[in-house]
Amino acid sequence: MSKSDKIIVVGAGLSGPLIAAMMRKRGYEVSLYESRPDMRKVEMAAGRSINLALSDRGLIPLDEIGVKEEVMATTVPMYGRMIHDNEGNTRLSRYSGREGEAINSVSRAGLNIQLINKAESLGVNVFYNEKCVGVDHKKGIVNFKSYTTGIESDVHADLIIGADGFGSAVRESMYDNHRETRFSFSQDYLSHGYKELHIPPGDDGSFRIDKNALHIWPRGGHMVIALPNEDGSFTVTLFHSFDGDEGFDNLNDDKSIMAFFKKYYSDILQHMPDVLTDFNENPTGNLATVKCYPWQSNGRSILIGDSAHAVVPFYGQGMNCSFEDCSVFTKIHDEHPGNWKWILETYQQTRKKDADAIGDLAVENYVEMRDSVAHPDFKEKRELEMKLEATYPDYKSKYSMVTFSPEIPYSMAMNLGRAQDEFLLNFCSKIDDVSGVDIASLKESLDVLKKQFV
Amino acid sequence: MSKSDKIIVVGAGLSGPLIAAMMRKRGYEVSLYESRPDMRKVEMAAGRSINLALSDRGLIPLDEIGVKEEVMATTVPMYGRMIHDNEGNTRLSRYSGREGEAINSVSRAGLNIQLINKAESLGVNVFYNEKCVGVDHKKGIVNFKSYTTGIESDVHADLIIGADGFGSAVRESMYDNHRETRFSFSQDYLSHGYKELHIPPGDDGSFRIDKNALHIWPRGGHMVIALPNEDGSFTVTLFHSFDGDEGFDNLNDDKSIMAFFKKYYSDILQHMPDVLTDFNENPTGNLATVKCYPWQSNGRSILIGDSAHAVVPFYGQGMNCSFEDCSVFTKIHDEHPGNWKWILETYQQTRKKDADAIGDLAVENYVEMRDSVAHPDFKEKRELEMKLEATYPDYKSKYSMVTFSPEIPYSMAMNLGRAQDEFLLNFCSKIDDVSGVDIASLKESLDVLKKQFV
Repeated sequence: MSKSDKIIVVGAGLSGPLIAAMMRKRGYEVSLYESRPDMRKVEMAAGRSINLALSDRGLIPLDEIGVKEEVMATTVPMYGRMIHDNEGNTRLSRYSGREGEAINSVSRAGLNIQLINKAESLGVNVFYNEKCVGVDHKKGIVNFKSYTTGIESDVHADLIIGADGFGSAVRESMYDNHRETRFSFSQDYLSHGYKELHIPPGDDGSFRIDKNALHIWPRGGHMVIALPNEDGSFTVTLFHSFDGDEGFDNLNDDKSIMAFFKKYYSDILQHMPDVLTDFNENPTGNLATVKCYPWQSNGRSILIGDSAHAVVPFYGQGMNCSFEDCSVFTKIHDEHPGNWKWILETYQQTRKKDADAIGDLAVENYVEMRDSVAHPDFKEKRELEMKLEATYPDYKSKYSMVTFSPEIPYSMAMNLGRAQDEFLLNFCSKIDDVSGVDIASLKESLDVLKKQFV
Repeated sequence: MSKSDKIIVVGAGLSGPLIAAMMRKRGYEVSLYESRPDMRKVEMAAGRSINLALSDRGLIPLDEIGVKEEVMATTVPMYGRMIHDNEGNTRLSRYSGREGEAINSVSRAGLNIQLINKAESLGVNVFYNEKCVGVDHKKGIVNFKSYTTGIESDVHADLIIGADGFGSAVRESMYDNHRETRFSFSQDYLSHGYKELHIPPGDDGSFRIDKNALHIWPRGGHMVIALPNEDGSFTVTLFHSFDGDEGFDNLNDDKSIMAFFKKYYSDILQHMPDVLTDFNENPTGNLATVKCYPWQSNGRSILIGDSAHAVVPFYGQGMNCSFEDCSVFTKIHDEHPGNWKWILETYQQTRKKDADAIGDLAVENYVEMRDSVAHPDFKEKRELEMKLEATYPDYKSKYSMVTFSPEIPYSMAMNLGRAQDEFLLNFCSKIDDVSGVDIASLKESLDVLKKQFV
């Protein structure tokens, strides 16, 4: 209950250093433990989540710890989806009908280093090569094993924050005790995985395709996306099923790989000279949603970020949700600083429904991205939504609510957003042309619909 | 691919000896391993699932191995729910509008012994005190540790059947490899648990309350049920939340326990002289649903019964579903005997949706049992369903489809049953009295509804 309380944060990935910095700013003694070496001193492994889309929910806590400007200086704004069809035609579907609303492509490693530097400069103690091998949630003790010395040590804390991602050891230790604590847990793998590729910069260092967009090649059963990097390159990701004649499991030699790309993605091939090297050297990643509950144990330990709720990447909200966790947690903390039992219980009860919502939205959005965006009704719906957003400041599409409206919780964005989508798709199925639509009357109907949700 | 193939079944609970017997009948060499001692030679621990409701789906495979008659001779038929209200009034809500349709209260231990005896008599080798501590799914090797000698041994099999229940070690070994196999898994605990109690036989050995019914005391937030035993006693179970002022966690002394029963269940107390002893000595059990997928690994191992899909007890279908697994598995086996890869893949693809359905139905039915059965619209709906079932041989309520109609898969029973329930509850909300309802015209509407599902 005092500022001398000690906090251990397990995991120095994205949300770990952020929550460590935020709690340090509140006066606690904070130690951050990471199982891997200091990423500032070693080469990064390639092939996994090289860049991410940073949006409004994620920016709020970055601003609070004073790194927002520095981070934003390294990002590339993306104003919409650039959709590449089978014939090589392109069409920009803007994310918002309002000027300036964009998501920001950011280097995962670069952002991570900025966060760790900030945490350290605020006085967070950072320890590397320390693997969490067990947690005593009742006593508030974390057992670490050093990868460099092999020595195990017990560290005591008043609060243990598990920010150790998808394969969380802190969550694992809660799971071990599931019969006593009724720890519910789910991990749902998609039948699709991903492979990271890249488009290098042009000879003059320029961007080979439009810089300020998230590029999508929707192909129904699979898709390729590309996000711009500061240096003129793009990180390209193929999302595709493992099974099937042309699935990942059967793309196992150069001939079948090239045949697949020539058949479906011939217009990207000219920009990817290293496609075979990338494909053969980078791992094929899995995609899974993790949910669990309770997130807290004994008023002493709490899961945040992916360790509590790993989501698939199709809404671009995994990192933003984890960062928003830190905002929600600290805001609740500030109501009764140091009253950990109340804080942890209030936090999990407040946040669970929103983490569930973004997990479900992310799975749904895969179908939208790889398939629906190419359908006529969907195009008309997006056109109407752009008009609505440009005309009415208070109209927000589901995408806008999720991405640009941190004041709307994910669960509300999901429920209202789904109702709006259903209404508008039904509306569009009955018209041939959106140009003649009476936008004012459409807005009135949508306002009636909205009343059911607020 | 030959009759000399060796099969290991892990777990001699209910579905283990059944599938062992069924596969032995097909000519394979079958060994059944159980971590506990031979239950025919030791005292049973009290307080957990003393009796169960055996119904049509479960009876089919029992008939196939020739134990149905013997088992049925020990059961007590239950023709409906005897509902006990707050004032001590009772009302029988029949399970079916058709004569003779009943579920059967059976002793779990007695049935288990009958199944093991049958498996042994057919030539299944049974080993006790052998704990499965690991499985190599690629090589088809199970590692057992003997509780009596401490010795570990590796046993090879062409097919490994994991029938080892909620805490399945075979499933655990599949989970360990989840990143490679994309093994999805969920365990969802309810916030409610259970406590087993009992009503002893009357002084003359008679049943103290109606013998041929499943008794329910629905109290909204909690309920008590009682199932008859052959000896004149009833196994009584209190289902109740852990949390709350009157929750399990706060019923921790004789005074609070007695106050709780006097307040809500005063009419049962007279029949339960040992309520305090039972309450204090029996453990408070958890209730959880387990789902996972895939159920098979490498064409060598397969999960059946609770290890693949543990369900909560509120539809009385956990055991029946596990037994039906054995029917579905052997029927698929018989299409291509010994072609394990095809059999396991076909089995899991066929059966998964039905196991999911009964898992979801069981959770939903808790609300119906503890709450809805007492509501006027619900009573009217059941009355109409009784009339429909008595008049039309082809009309089946959701309960009838699930319980008395093995020809209808659980998933279909769920989808059609939910639609019927919604239709009839809506119908009943608009009428004051069911006696004037035109049953023929109602049946026509229901037939139209049904066409969407078949």
